[in-house]
Amino acid sequence: MNNSQLYGGIEAGGTKFICVVGSGPENILEKTRIETTVPEETLGKVIRFFQPYTTTGKVTAIGIGCFGPLDLNPDSPTYGFITSTPKPHWSNTDVLGTIRRALKINVAFDMDVNTAALGEFRWGASQGTDPSLYITIGTGIGGGYIKDGKALIGMNNLEMGHIRLPHDLKRDPFPGACPFHGDCFEGLASGPAIEKRFNARGETIRDNDPFWDIEADYIALALSNIILTLSPKRIILGGGIMQRTFLFPLIRLKVLKILNGYVESETLLKNIDEYIVPPALGNRSGSLGAIALAQSFT
Amino acid sequence: MNNSQLYGGIEAGGTKFICVVGSGPENILEKTRIETTVPEETLGKVIRFFQPYTTTGKVTAIGIGCFGPLDLNPDSPTYGFITSTPKPHWSNTDVLGTIRRALKINVAFDMDVNTAALGEFRWGASQGTDPSLYITIGTGIGGGYIKDGKALIGMNNLEMGHIRLPHDLKRDPFPGACPFHGDCFEGLASGPAIEKRFNARGETIRDNDPFWDIEADYIALALSNIILTLSPKRIILGGGIMQRTFLFPLIRLKVLKILNGYVESETLLKNIDEYIVPPALGNRSGSLGAIALAQSFT
Repeated sequence: MNNSQLYGGIEAGGTKFICVVGSGPENILEKTRIETTVPEETLGKVIRFFQPYTTTGKVTAIGIGCFGPLDLNPDSPTYGFITSTPKPHWSNTDVLGTIRRALKINVAFDMDVNTAALGEFRWGASQGTDPSLYITIGTGIGGGYIKDGKALIGMNNLEMGHIRLPHDLKRDPFPGACPFHGDCFEGLASGPAIEKRFNARGETIRDNDPFWDIEADYIALALSNIILTLSPKRIILGGGIMQRTFLFPLIRLKVLKILNGYVESETLLKNIDEYIVPPALGNRSGSLGAIALAQSFT
Repeated sequence: MNNSQLYGGIEAGGTKFICVVGSGPENILEKTRIETTVPEETLGKVIRFFQPYTTTGKVTAIGIGCFGPLDLNPDSPTYGFITSTPKPHWSNTDVLGTIRRALKINVAFDMDVNTAALGEFRWGASQGTDPSLYITIGTGIGGGYIKDGKALIGMNNLEMGHIRLPHDLKRDPFPGACPFHGDCFEGLASGPAIEKRFNARGETIRDNDPFWDIEADYIALALSNIILTLSPKRIILGGGIMQRTFLFPLIRLKVLKILNGYVESETLLKNIDEYIVPPALGNRSGSLGAIALAQSFT
């Protein structure tokens, strides 16, 4: 990879598209935020942002980390589409194709959480740590698993936000908010689940509310299951809910208690502060990860 | 790989070691069963079985699929050891080193469930299906995940048998039998858990006992979590409990119900009979997989 070469990165979210041009965290030449309205408008603005770079050959590849659900099967006729999303106007949108045809350059495409995982692996808290995992806990819950330097895709995207967990209805009678599964991990612990439980914005729930111990329990139960199934060498927890940083020590203690010494790893047993960590790139994991994805073309 | 070349395979279990010489399912020249007593005796017999082949150069590589827990970190001084097993005499046994030093040939080493997964991937029910998963449900519960043609090892072995599941104590008041986690998947659904629940050998529980619906629930909940986390293209269910073949259709229906259309895959939604399947190699998955592992040296 040529360090002076520029790449485009798009963090395509349900609220905003963050577009960047650069080559890494120390070298971002231009950045813009585009509201997520309707595909024609939003993608049109994205294309116009990059055109000065692509028509002059300064940028030859773009990476996109996109909100889902996505078709990520390269053999599918709808590869690169957002499929059936509850977000109005965006179902069956050809994100990859629209941008590639307009800009006539290489475009790499993946789930938003996968590019965030890649960004942290390339420049952040899991640099060179393979396999590693990035989990976002916010509006939705999802995880990206980096194995052999790239995000693992199986039959479909990984959807570990929807695993089932023990749910003690006496302690937490909330039935869950997932339209598919009720009380799956996302249905119990995501931002919308918290808002529905309290009938109030999550931001209004104080740090000393006893609910956070329940929230930490769900996160720790889910992480324990994921550690047993994927055995990552480090776990990064991002997303809006993890802005409550007091959750980190609570989650770490609970994971150790749940696993109860079964996973014999020095890192886990003696250095859990370095095993379950916040992102090092803050809210730039996704856009920088999109640049890292674009660099796969070189 | 030279098809006429012979390899050694060892399925090293807590009850018996199955040793084979051959090159694949259609070409097994010799096979023996050695009781698992104490390491000196058992490994001594294993070595003497292979010596006629290794001293003459007919066999130049052996694969071992071993019961755990194991040290599988190649950089560790105890790589290739069985670590702290409850099985008397076998804690801290250098299985890999003992065999390699005695026979002076290449020896490849992995978890028993990983070699079973590899055997099914090479010659059985998941032939060429990548990623794919083999889960054994018997004395213990464990899973091997084949990705890019080999078993995935992360920080440690995968230990998906110990994930936590929803446990309705009113329906199933059994507290679980896992010494580490109580009512984890293995603690609720393994052979020993069933025996402890009934205080009777599992074989004596009739096919029409209502318990099997509960058992199928646990297996389906675990598979759903594992599908969401690893997204395999096929799942093979082996082990003693899956000899009750009536469990297969029950588990398939319950997995579809639990996932509730969330995982958009034709295979899963329309061909689940081909998605969750029994092993094609029967009880030979492990020993043949050990041969496949040995072939990695060529």
